[in-house]
Amino acid sequence: MSEITILGFAGSLRKGSYNKAILRAAGEVLPPNTRLEIFDLEGIPLFDQDLEMTPPQRVAEFKSKIRAADAILIATPEYNYSVSGVLKNAIDCASRPYGDSAFDGKPVAIMSASIGMLGGARAQYHLRQCFIFLNMTPVTRPEVFVGQADKKVDENGRFTDEVGRKLIKELVENLVKLTVRMKGEVNG
Amino acid sequence: MSEITILGFAGSLRKGSYNKAILRAAGEVLPPNTRLEIFDLEGIPLFDQDLEMTPPQRVAEFKSKIRAADAILIATPEYNYSVSGVLKNAIDCASRPYGDSAFDGKPVAIMSASIGMLGGARAQYHLRQCFIFLNMTPVTRPEVFVGQADKKVDENGRFTDEVGRKLIKELVENLVKLTVRMKGEVNG
Amino acid sequence: MSEITILGFAGSLRKGSYNKAILRAAGEVLPPNTRLEIFDLEGIPLFDQDLEMTPPQRVAEFKSKIRAADAILIATPEYNYSVSGVLKNAIDCASRPYGDSAFDGKPVAIMSASIGMLGGARAQYHLRQCFIFLNMTPVTRPEVFVGQADKKVDENGRFTDEVGRKLIKELVENLVKLTVRMKGEVNG
Amino acid sequence: MSEITILGFAGSLRKGSYNKAILRAAGEVLPPNTRLEIFDLEGIPLFDQDLEMTPPQRVAEFKSKIRAADAILIATPEYNYSVSGVLKNAIDCASRPYGDSAFDGKPVAIMSASIGMLGGARAQYHLRQCFIFLNMTPVTRPEVFVGQADKKVDENGRFTDEVGRKLIKELVENLVKLTVRMKGEVNG
Repeated sequence: MSEITILGFAGSLRKGSYNKAILRAAGEVLPPNTRLEIFDLEGIPLFDQDLEMTPPQRVAEFKSKIRAADAILIATPEYNYSVSGVLKNAIDCASRPYGDSAFDGKPVAIMSASIGMLGGARAQYHLRQCFIFLNMTPVTRPEVFVGQADKKVDENGRFTDEVGRKLIKELVENLVKLTVRMKGEVNG
Repeated sequence: MSEITILGFAGSLRKGSYNKAILRAAGEVLPPNTRLEIFDLEGIPLFDQDLEMTPPQRVAEFKSKIRAADAILIATPEYNYSVSGVLKNAIDCASRPYGDSAFDGKPVAIMSASIGMLGGARAQYHLRQCFIFLNMTPVTRPEVFVGQADKKVDENGRFTDEVGRKLIKELVENLVKLTVRMKGEVNG
Repeated sequence: MSEITILGFAGSLRKGSYNKAILRAAGEVLPPNTRLEIFDLEGIPLFDQDLEMTPPQRVAEFKSKIRAADAILIATPEYNYSVSGVLKNAIDCASRPYGDSAFDGKPVAIMSASIGMLGGARAQYHLRQCFIFLNMTPVTRPEVFVGQADKKVDENGRFTDEVGRKLIKELVENLVKLTVRMKGEVNG
Repeated sequence: MSEITILGFAGSLRKGSYNKAILRAAGEVLPPNTRLEIFDLEGIPLFDQDLEMTPPQRVAEFKSKIRAADAILIATPEYNYSVSGVLKNAIDCASRPYGDSAFDGKPVAIMSASIGMLGGARAQYHLRQCFIFLNMTPVTRPEVFVGQADKKVDENGRFTDEVGRKLIKELVENLVKLTVRMKGEVNG
């Protein structure tokens, strides 16, 4: 069977982002025959519908990476009880223009890290609602909410929490299973 | 009684935005002794927490306008079943750094325009959840969902739908009432 | 291939319920080799955790029917911007006691009928959030929101709207496809 | 100033319910000149629209208590990532028939207790969406999510967590403030 490619991105521009850290952790617990490519949202401009027919190079590149991937992995911060504007904007950019969304039909998994106790749960439920419109199929379980993230990432930016790493491993495994199942349906 | 100042902004950068159109319509149906100032989100950069302690001029200006206003009026598009990234990002910018949110304690009203039938309802419910964190008090009614907006804005960008204009008038009146009530509590 | 059995239920006790009507309509547009059994929620008592270890006969029967089915089809009214209490209560009953949920792992499709314009959209998004906990996999599309339902059901309780019937047909077809795909994964 | 009457109810029929416990705790931390009456949802039948014009005695009594109260206090369990069916059903009953909702215009505060870590947050956001339709004004803060409730209620059913009791006190105080403010508007 051919390799499964996952495209991952984190909804934060901060260099020391906890969500970038859990995304890198996902790269360390991949199932066999699976590759994670991480895309940095730096450089994705704010969406302007007047310009959507000629998207800037960085958006074209983002859409092309999404299209080439078999599955998507998103790490989202929670700002103001929802997904970050940075993440939502990147999703908006890659889903436009209407009829040319790069996300259509893709399997997706989500996780979140935050300093608070709830670990981004509220952001994840908003994101799941977006997937309905985007026609993406999310992994149901496990739900990965990394709370108190500031205590779980070391000075080198490594996510060190063992319980969290296990959950991330299970999440990525389930994403790969879902991806294989959905590919099978199309090709089989 | 002193004049009530409302700061309005629309979550779209598009020049011919339907949400900008309904925001301008609000300016035409204000109660007496009320002023609506419209702020264009153009120029608000993507939020980067690494830079939040020295926000760019445009963000400082946005926060200052919000603080000077008695109430907030938001017109939001719906992208991917949630608020636009452009709007969410602007809200994130003005709510940071932690402890220095410009929105704290403000009364707010929301409306939305979209081409679809539901008129942005899904975006509005996400926005209302944000208000809980932001400690803002939203007007409950009426809910202003302008569906099929492309048929209700003329070539000059004027929102012409009479039913919609009445609802917007009622929404703004209720925002002013709520604002007076909340001011009274503090000053009275 | 063996027959696919769908268990359907509507979240209303009203005899002339529009949601019962669209459920019956689903029975008229089934794909080949598919059977729809409709379960009436009449007789499911209010959930009382003190009694959950010895559920009443009607709840035991409901759970047994759910377990025997390959897939679930729910028609939900929208009351007070969420699912009806009658529906939520039936779901609570069949999901308890903890560790003995009848719904675990089932594919599910949802539709809704209401007199208003939005056709129950808000109730459906709440229901989708329940499915995350219930570990159920919902069909993504189409979203079937039957608005102005009072004009689309005739005096014999037949749902007559052709656009709506087509959507329901597509929904059930997608439920069957999802069910086959998920069975394949387990058995194949 | 006349006494403020709060009607409280918990969305559980279980005798040892943690939500009943936090509701009783609210009664121990009331501001001066405030009374909390607790209504037990036992006996409220499942809503049947065919019978709504002649509601059973218990529903009539519930509606009458709600109408007589100045404010509402709800303690909700979280089942399946939403409010309990028992609670939603009681709300549906008291909000019907259309045009005769007992809740219209009432201020309301919510809290929740659960065994899990998130303490019912998901249920509360669904409930807040209901309040929009019900035209109720919820207290924004504090959000009272009592997690790990089994460790915080003693053998006599007393809620003993001091942090939680403080939050409940603050919640009730804010409910009373909101109630006074809203009364003032009408009478003043």
